[in-house]
Amino acid sequence: MSDIIVGIDIGGTSTKFGLVDQSGEVLFQSKITTQTHSDFRDFIKELDDAIKKGMSEVGSSTKLIGIGIGAPNANYLRGTIEHAANLRWKGIIPIVDIMKNDFNVPVMITNDANAAAMGEMIYGHAQVMKDFIVITLGTGLGSGIVCNGKLVHGHDGFAAELGHVIINPRGRQCGCGRRGCLETYVSATGIKRTVYKMLADHLEESELRGISFHDLTTKMIAESAQRGDLVAKDAFEYTGQVLGAKLADTVAHTDPEAIFLFGGLSLAKDLIFEPTRRHLEETLMPIYRGKVQVLPSGLQNQSAPILGASSLVIDFLNNNEREVVG
Amino acid sequence: MSDIIVGIDIGGTSTKFGLVDQSGEVLFQSKITTQTHSDFRDFIKELDDAIKKGMSEVGSSTKLIGIGIGAPNANYLRGTIEHAANLRWKGIIPIVDIMKNDFNVPVMITNDANAAAMGEMIYGHAQVMKDFIVITLGTGLGSGIVCNGKLVHGHDGFAAELGHVIINPRGRQCGCGRRGCLETYVSATGIKRTVYKMLADHLEESELRGISFHDLTTKMIAESAQRGDLVAKDAFEYTGQVLGAKLADTVAHTDPEAIFLFGGLSLAKDLIFEPTRRHLEETLMPIYRGKVQVLPSGLQNQSAPILGASSLVIDFLNNNEREVVG
Repeated sequence: MSDIIVGIDIGGTSTKFGLVDQSGEVLFQSKITTQTHSDFRDFIKELDDAIKKGMSEVGSSTKLIGIGIGAPNANYLRGTIEHAANLRWKGIIPIVDIMKNDFNVPVMITNDANAAAMGEMIYGHAQVMKDFIVITLGTGLGSGIVCNGKLVHGHDGFAAELGHVIINPRGRQCGCGRRGCLETYVSATGIKRTVYKMLADHLEESELRGISFHDLTTKMIAESAQRGDLVAKDAFEYTGQVLGAKLADTVAHTDPEAIFLFGGLSLAKDLIFEPTRRHLEETLMPIYRGKVQVLPSGLQNQSAPILGASSLVIDFLNNNEREVVG
Repeated sequence: MSDIIVGIDIGGTSTKFGLVDQSGEVLFQSKITTQTHSDFRDFIKELDDAIKKGMSEVGSSTKLIGIGIGAPNANYLRGTIEHAANLRWKGIIPIVDIMKNDFNVPVMITNDANAAAMGEMIYGHAQVMKDFIVITLGTGLGSGIVCNGKLVHGHDGFAAELGHVIINPRGRQCGCGRRGCLETYVSATGIKRTVYKMLADHLEESELRGISFHDLTTKMIAESAQRGDLVAKDAFEYTGQVLGAKLADTVAHTDPEAIFLFGGLSLAKDLIFEPTRRHLEETLMPIYRGKVQVLPSGLQNQSAPILGASSLVIDFLNNNEREVVG
């Protein structure tokens, strides 16, 4: 009888889930549409049914030992999704309680970036680390902070919102209602804004002048930069400068061994890593210089969000066993 | 037989120590001069002898169970004092190893601000908190960060240097070699610099125009502000603005229940607390608003550094007992 964990990644469009064994192999993977049901209870019912169907497909010799969920605006401490702007259900969704009832196993939830950090620790490049940070670069910028080998959730369950540290209080308008947050500069949307600002401020010719804001993607900017387009290259340099310089403040908080960059922008490799590292080193307080690595995530693949979510369960069981055994 | 802990506070001028029982009562307190000996081994020898003398004075019915040390540039992970600018011994001082040899009990060291945070958790106002931050306002600005009930030391033992997060990369010159660090604005020295900048920029009459930079103290500025001096009042407002706004970034890292202000500037009470709270709330990301308290430390007395240092031992023993008992 082998132990199986369900990892679930709830996104605005689709909800992916996988059945994962303890070595991190995804034995079964499927998805449902997130937005079909107007009542979240119906959504959870459909998800539960799909999981049970998957369980029966992987066979009767497996035992479900827990369910981990990554979701936007998830609160680990309360087991809820709270006021998620890109989901259709308003208010507070007590998803953990409902699924615990249905499956009678430990269920835990956290936001996507915390799940990515936990996945990095259990399955990725942080397996021997106790103090590190994961930055997820998507439409926005998310983060997960690990100190003393534990994910930092904070008193209210909303720690590690590094997308919303402030670069400039009179800077770019942010979806959170303030101005100048890091993710308005460093994210897929942030680098697009930087390209458009550069096209506005300078006369430099650029192949990006022919592309609308809606059509422009990080991949296009990266490809232009690789072809030598100066605006595209400068946009990556500026993005790395803003990220690297601001991460110096983060290092002064938790003194991590490494900062991992995950997803979206990080796929542009040296275009983003080189300026980020350089500006971080230049900005760091002397006692930290040469000691903090900026690395690509070890989970850069399609299953990463599912692995990240499932790793919440591994971590939970590890800690509980430890406490019982002493 | 009652258990006794030695708490030691190593400062640039004098080294204070106390014998503390487990309830936090200081049974004996004394000090030696820090800078008498050119060899640090002679300093430690004198300190050890003074401690043993104190032990014999409190009587034979006590048992030493550990020694905690707070010191500048202390590294908890390595048990060392490293390159402390305001001590006469250069390089790396392996003080923990030496004292362990002499006393044969657990010995631990950390910097003053981390000791203050631990003291707040064991004896102060954070006894029921798991996630909080202590800011020590002295000549500079120190800090200790507690997450998940544990002090954050970081991978290299230098976490929580919040005096060196950057307000403005083109700002005031800092002793660390960079510019615009928080402590160049928010500290005893920082508020003096702010007063002098205001006296330079404006024509406003002020009783502080008659005092030299060397003679000016936080206490004088506070007393002037209480008498209604506009420059002194503005200097506190500006200091609280810089601190409050920057702490919004810190909240986005660790989502603490409370931020305690300790020592120096914090003794000016509402002059510093009111603007700090107001600008923190104004700057916080909406999900954090109304949830983070800014409070005076519960250890505002002469014995605080000794209690803080001794609490390192309590925490160490608590955690070890927990692990043994399971």
